[in-house]
Amino acid sequence: MALHPDRLLPIEESARAIARRLYDGVAGLPIVSPHGHTDPAWYADDPAFPDPAALFVKPDHYVTRMLHSQGVKLEALGIARRDGGPVEADPRAIWRLFAQNYFLFAGTPSRLWFEHSVETVFGISERLGPGNADALYDAISAALAKPQMRPRALYKRFGIEAIATTDSALDDLASHRAVRVSGWAGRVVPTYRPDAAVDPEAEGFAVNVRRLVEMTGNRLDWQGYLAAHRARRAYFKDLGATATDHGHPSARTENLPQTEAASLFERVAAGRGNGADAETFRAQMLTEMARMSIDDGLVMQIHPGSFRNHNPMLFSAFGKDMGADIPQRTDYVRALKPLLDAFGNDPRLTLILFTLDETAYSRELAPLAGHYPALMLGPAWWFFDSPEGMRRFREATTETAGFYNTVGFNDDTRAYLSIPARHDMARRVDCAWLARLVADHRLDEEEAHAIARDLAYGLAKKAYRL
Amino acid sequence: MALHPDRLLPIEESARAIARRLYDGVAGLPIVSPHGHTDPAWYADDPAFPDPAALFVKPDHYVTRMLHSQGVKLEALGIARRDGGPVEADPRAIWRLFAQNYFLFAGTPSRLWFEHSVETVFGISERLGPGNADALYDAISAALAKPQMRPRALYKRFGIEAIATTDSALDDLASHRAVRVSGWAGRVVPTYRPDAAVDPEAEGFAVNVRRLVEMTGNRLDWQGYLAAHRARRAYFKDLGATATDHGHPSARTENLPQTEAASLFERVAAGRGNGADAETFRAQMLTEMARMSIDDGLVMQIHPGSFRNHNPMLFSAFGKDMGADIPQRTDYVRALKPLLDAFGNDPRLTLILFTLDETAYSRELAPLAGHYPALMLGPAWWFFDSPEGMRRFREATTETAGFYNTVGFNDDTRAYLSIPARHDMARRVDCAWLARLVADHRLDEEEAHAIARDLAYGLAKKAYRL
Amino acid sequence: MALHPDRLLPIEESARAIARRLYDGVAGLPIVSPHGHTDPAWYADDPAFPDPAALFVKPDHYVTRMLHSQGVKLEALGIARRDGGPVEADPRAIWRLFAQNYFLFAGTPSRLWFEHSVETVFGISERLGPGNADALYDAISAALAKPQMRPRALYKRFGIEAIATTDSALDDLASHRAVRVSGWAGRVVPTYRPDAAVDPEAEGFAVNVRRLVEMTGNRLDWQGYLAAHRARRAYFKDLGATATDHGHPSARTENLPQTEAASLFERVAAGRGNGADAETFRAQMLTEMARMSIDDGLVMQIHPGSFRNHNPMLFSAFGKDMGADIPQRTDYVRALKPLLDAFGNDPRLTLILFTLDETAYSRELAPLAGHYPALMLGPAWWFFDSPEGMRRFREATTETAGFYNTVGFNDDTRAYLSIPARHDMARRVDCAWLARLVADHRLDEEEAHAIARDLAYGLAKKAYRL
Repeated sequence: MALHPDRLLPIEESARAIARRLYDGVAGLPIVSPHGHTDPAWYADDPAFPDPAALFVKPDHYVTRMLHSQGVKLEALGIARRDGGPVEADPRAIWRLFAQNYFLFAGTPSRLWFEHSVETVFGISERLGPGNADALYDAISAALAKPQMRPRALYKRFGIEAIATTDSALDDLASHRAVRVSGWAGRVVPTYRPDAAVDPEAEGFAVNVRRLVEMTGNRLDWQGYLAAHRARRAYFKDLGATATDHGHPSARTENLPQTEAASLFERVAAGRGNGADAETFRAQMLTEMARMSIDDGLVMQIHPGSFRNHNPMLFSAFGKDMGADIPQRTDYVRALKPLLDAFGNDPRLTLILFTLDETAYSRELAPLAGHYPALMLGPAWWFFDSPEGMRRFREATTETAGFYNTVGFNDDTRAYLSIPARHDMARRVDCAWLARLVADHRLDEEEAHAIARDLAYGLAKKAYRL
Repeated sequence: MALHPDRLLPIEESARAIARRLYDGVAGLPIVSPHGHTDPAWYADDPAFPDPAALFVKPDHYVTRMLHSQGVKLEALGIARRDGGPVEADPRAIWRLFAQNYFLFAGTPSRLWFEHSVETVFGISERLGPGNADALYDAISAALAKPQMRPRALYKRFGIEAIATTDSALDDLASHRAVRVSGWAGRVVPTYRPDAAVDPEAEGFAVNVRRLVEMTGNRLDWQGYLAAHRARRAYFKDLGATATDHGHPSARTENLPQTEAASLFERVAAGRGNGADAETFRAQMLTEMARMSIDDGLVMQIHPGSFRNHNPMLFSAFGKDMGADIPQRTDYVRALKPLLDAFGNDPRLTLILFTLDETAYSRELAPLAGHYPALMLGPAWWFFDSPEGMRRFREATTETAGFYNTVGFNDDTRAYLSIPARHDMARRVDCAWLARLVADHRLDEEEAHAIARDLAYGLAKKAYRL
Repeated sequence: MALHPDRLLPIEESARAIARRLYDGVAGLPIVSPHGHTDPAWYADDPAFPDPAALFVKPDHYVTRMLHSQGVKLEALGIARRDGGPVEADPRAIWRLFAQNYFLFAGTPSRLWFEHSVETVFGISERLGPGNADALYDAISAALAKPQMRPRALYKRFGIEAIATTDSALDDLASHRAVRVSGWAGRVVPTYRPDAAVDPEAEGFAVNVRRLVEMTGNRLDWQGYLAAHRARRAYFKDLGATATDHGHPSARTENLPQTEAASLFERVAAGRGNGADAETFRAQMLTEMARMSIDDGLVMQIHPGSFRNHNPMLFSAFGKDMGADIPQRTDYVRALKPLLDAFGNDPRLTLILFTLDETAYSRELAPLAGHYPALMLGPAWWFFDSPEGMRRFREATTETAGFYNTVGFNDDTRAYLSIPARHDMARRVDCAWLARLVADHRLDEEEAHAIARDLAYGLAKKAYRL
């Protein structure tokens, strides 16, 4: 450090010059963040962030998984045990441990995000290490106490134009309502994420389904269940939602006759379904959600392919989202067919696909999105929201799907301070890709400027109807 | 535009200089087009091409799929509906629609092919857009009326040395015979493509099989069916064919005992086979075709892995080849084993493999082709016949299979005017790859010159026995 | 040739300068070769290598497979037939054949290894070809007669600090004992490779199992069998072994109840098991081996995914390891779960994973190794131990797993003279990758120097406990 102005741009001089010009045209554009996991309470209550460890270490599963892989105990990082067992309570001790192991992050996006944040937000341009851990801790701590470090002030400073959170279908969206009521100028919208009441293998599924129908005054049957979803979607939409999101183990969809779907619902809601029923039910619900999207206009997202909680020892000690979700091979061609047969040509539907299986980019996703009007490609996701990952995404998809079947960038993060860092990274990598196309004469620079703006800003607004 | 002389060459100066020298050595070589889909009637009858839309838009599924993906109706592109329903009849209106949406093709090979064609064939070096759609339409239309724009004149102008068409096993090859009889100097050869009479799931299979045996005076049984193929292959060979081609959903092969194959034939020919029978029959027929190739010397090509007509609504409205064929994961290691066990070491067989699944390049195809004498790797195919796709092909295959287990370039197109553009693109990308190997001292430039000539010209002639 | 000092370094000037500095810092580091297939007798008996063909052609399946793929008969390369049939006996004739076909290796790592060896070991900087085949043959032959060309002298000259061989569980390790007794300063250690007594589908499995238990004085039952492995591991460890190695068709693991494992053992040891039993038994044994590793500290390696002896005609004529092993698609996420559930979080276990399926790098292997403390990623293996293969390995794994969940380089070779060439190639490619990260400001050069040393030397020592 300090952050080099040409970081992530092409190495070759002439391409770098082109990329720099492209980047200069998009660096200052507002941030549209249509998919992410920040806490809506931040915008409602505008609290101070507690300490550097709570900000940069504990909640970031990219960070904790790397440390865990090298033998650091999650307890030592202050992550709460389900059994209430002892964990490190001193944030400074956690920070020191992070600093000692900071060298592990060389070559990873975590390091780039972190350094962008500490330099641009805290003005720190020293590299973290054991020698300066305390000094950096103190500097960050001191800054966090200041009013300009509160979420709403940062929202403005980051140039955010709109940001979506991800919310359970059962959520009352109290914070979202509070933001509305407050009159604050920021635009924070919820996203309808019904997995807990859609996936029969989710913890508490039966209870969640019962709550869902009860909170909407419906009966506990298939029609009541669908009506409940429609009601909740309308509630979310009233509070600004423009999209739904679905995190399934696979991309499988079904389009069963309604009588069959109804009896499947009965089985799974009563806890009498088996594993195949669970998969079929999730599959059916994707098609149902697409049908509802056509009616209410909510954009639909599918995030498939994660083997959740792969490490049972960690799951039982700490619960989910501990960095033990592992990508798996994901088929789209056959999996999506029932849904696409029904709605793939419908211009009212926007269905944004993500993947954890890069092999699908060129073989399946770009050909599908380059054909079906309803399909769009989400940006490089989880494990691939990185310079090399984003480069490979463009290299593998552009020639078949072009730029206009993609939807710009998602930061997909709960790490608030990393949002500008992530958007900046995406803008740089996209400009680097465009610069390559200009430098070897596949595009004119003038066109590339327009495309760069679309990738950084326009496509996300359009695709997500924001 | 205008076309930059260094397009698609490496960005870095010293590598570009090497690539330019390599390219200069191959740019003017004749075109050998051993696999494609041009209409043999063009060479027989030498008609004028009707209009710009018929030339560049309507028949090009790369173009129509991209437009469809962004909501353009195929009817608006003048594509005939099966039910005879109304479609756009005015080619100028279709052209304007193409021009309005031309920006969608940024970063795609379609754009590069189109711009190469309009500049080199029509002398137009303006970029198409809504503003100049009519002017370009008029200029192209005017040119199309001239005798030098007829197929035979273009054949000569393009420097084509030989071109293969792809023809149904049931085709009488009347145009090919007419070309022969005409005394014209061009070399146009058919390719034996028997899918319609080999795939029990093809429309009209039973009828096609009956016609096949009848037209060759054979009986409708397994031996008669095989004899019919042999007779038709001989007929194709008499008219210049040097190759067969097989487009199957998978690469699966079988080598059943002949009695079992005979009874399988009886079932599928009588329409009594199920889906597994169909797959097994196709698999068996690949091995039978290999056996015949050993006898008659026709080179065998397998193009597996396309999920055909993925979009049933489009299929029922417009029929096949509407841009709704989607690649799928394809296994070669187990699939090809029965055929390879029988003939993989036979030097009389040349079996050229293609893929729509890039992951097979380094994992399966290069190791197989780098071992079996009978196997060769076809070039980057459909969805990958693009600058990035061809680059990845070389990067993934060269280290294991070398250059001499590959067979040069196929344009694989029905878009006549794009043929020089496609060969030029392949030559540039191959020279760029060779230049990289020279620039980082893996090859000498002198060797690279010889390899570049083989990739552009020599390997195709040799592998396809042209 | 001669070897260019900048070979394999980045083409772009500024990145090349960085890479050259990084490479200068690691070029002279000792070679740690923790996994390979050299003959321990070489170190024990220090014989002269017989002739150029025996050195460079006959034993190198990278070379023989390429020649075979282009129609050269293995007999003509002097490879012994199982039936004792005639083969070429004149090494000079074999060498000439190699020279005639040397052009096939353009773009392959075999060529780079060969040229590095002949230039650095024999001082020959002419490119081999038909014109100089005899001259090079004579020069190499003459050199081979000299004492400085014996294995021990080369060990010293190559700067080897430690080298592991790979040895059957049934091996008496006589050569290893002889090396020990001899007092020679070189460090040659065995590796415990029990496949022949672990894989029920291996030739002679039942006999091997009986020998295993007999040579350790155990009974032929499950407990006796496990005790026999423990005893043999201890024997290997006494002679310096630090690791085991397991070459299975898949990465599947199981963790059966011991009673079930015992009865499975009874079935397979008695030859009564079917194919599924064989797969389950291999799977179970990986978990048993992990359990033993936790006790005795031997590092565990899994090399899965090869379809061995794909070519039955070649296998029956010449036996195994004839270049007919073909990679296949390999799953890790589900396959490894039983083992990982048991031991994935145990810091005493080091389990090093390899793959022949590149698609697993970013999708499965980096996420798994970037999470589980016990898991580490082995370097790019077989078919991928090449400039492009090693580059793709770093590009696909670094962002998720970092550098410190990888274990440096393995040469994995039986080609003694290629060892420095292979390590040199790996060092160059890693420095090229690091230089890219420095040049686009993802790393500081100072950090890159430290990482380069770890990749070239430190990580292998640490991971393999050498």
